[in-house]
Amino acid sequence: MTHMRRAPARRQPVTFQALTHLEVNTSGRGFFEITAEVAAFLAEAGAATGTLTAFCRHTSASLTIQENADPDVRADLITALETLAPTGFGWVHDLEGPDDMPAHVRTMLTDVTVTIPVEDGRLGLGAWQGLYLIEHRTKPHRREIRLIFTGTGVE
Amino acid sequence: MTHMRRAPARRQPVTFQALTHLEVNTSGRGFFEITAEVAAFLAEAGAATGTLTAFCRHTSASLTIQENADPDVRADLITALETLAPTGFGWVHDLEGPDDMPAHVRTMLTDVTVTIPVEDGRLGLGAWQGLYLIEHRTKPHRREIRLIFTGTGVE
Amino acid sequence: MTHMRRAPARRQPVTFQALTHLEVNTSGRGFFEITAEVAAFLAEAGAATGTLTAFCRHTSASLTIQENADPDVRADLITALETLAPTGFGWVHDLEGPDDMPAHVRTMLTDVTVTIPVEDGRLGLGAWQGLYLIEHRTKPHRREIRLIFTGTGVE
Repeated sequence: MTHMRRAPARRQPVTFQALTHLEVNTSGRGFFEITAEVAAFLAEAGAATGTLTAFCRHTSASLTIQENADPDVRADLITALETLAPTGFGWVHDLEGPDDMPAHVRTMLTDVTVTIPVEDGRLGLGAWQGLYLIEHRTKPHRREIRLIFTGTGVE
Repeated sequence: MTHMRRAPARRQPVTFQALTHLEVNTSGRGFFEITAEVAAFLAEAGAATGTLTAFCRHTSASLTIQENADPDVRADLITALETLAPTGFGWVHDLEGPDDMPAHVRTMLTDVTVTIPVEDGRLGLGAWQGLYLIEHRTKPHRREIRLIFTGTGVE
Repeated sequence: MTHMRRAPARRQPVTFQALTHLEVNTSGRGFFEITAEVAAFLAEAGAATGTLTAFCRHTSASLTIQENADPDVRADLITALETLAPTGFGWVHDLEGPDDMPAHVRTMLTDVTVTIPVEDGRLGLGAWQGLYLIEHRTKPHRREIRLIFTGTGVE
């Protein structure tokens, strides 16, 4: 038996949604944290409680929620993605360069979209969680992320 | 410093949700694009702006958002999934055939559910993104996908 | 041509959201099914039709929707995750023990958040689907999951 404990359900009306577009200019392969920008959007929109969805409009860059403390973690995650989808694997699709097809595989293995609960105006992330855009291409790219909040607003 | 640019938040009331069930008859292992069916559902439902969630009700078929241009990309993605979860690995669970357990692993590594922002009646996919059902089993199967839109409607 | 069949769209007003926090005490590495707790939350909240989002507030535990019948499937999934992100790989980040960095990679490859359609008070899972928390660390941990439903309520 797994021991579980569940808090009483809290009910609220759903009143509005708020949207924005976020542009991120990456400096090439790596992790780029966007947590603060998402929090700023929630504050600007007057979001109180509900859900926040982030969506990455690309197939060679993606999203993930990962540890925001030790940078070695992100270095190891890059190593893991390189191992799981090696650059020199012999992919058929290589018209856009040797880093393109591995970027598609790494996008498939991570997230294009994430939905995060929001409570009292704050993202419901855990203490060690940050929201990251992962740039899978070697060179810098301009990436577009759409954000949408659905729920209740601040009074 | 990562350079980011964020558009002003747009607020709207949330008025309705719309649901449907989608059946896809696959011809066996491969990628099956369902973007047009999802767009047709949004049009029929009178969806304007909000979120669209697609949910795949299976553990040996899944969803992914991937490049919709060069078909070589999907061929390479199939190769990647075969490499990551090999058919002849020596899985314990093989009552349903040698292609069943790798199908579960490949489902776990890709997506059972995706949420896509919708703006002005259109899916917020990037230029090269398509929504695909991935059939992981060798033989044809009938697959069920549930779609739900939440947001504002067309006037 | 892929054969598809789509049911007529059903429209409903969106009236409310309900939230809760779920604590799961794991006994160490493995799969812990939370489907029944999520269903109990929906019943308590008076949820009828909409979406349920589950969010795991950790970077070394995650969520997945997988087969709930043969337990051999979960054993094979553990084997697959061990193969994809080996414990003794030589990760740079090892301050928190040899099972910590593989846990981050396995979290990245599976799900931190899932959204499931709800119809007539029931989770829209397929016949063989269950919602699981995956504990990636060797030792027992207390894990927090946030649940939020958005949609219509029971009359």
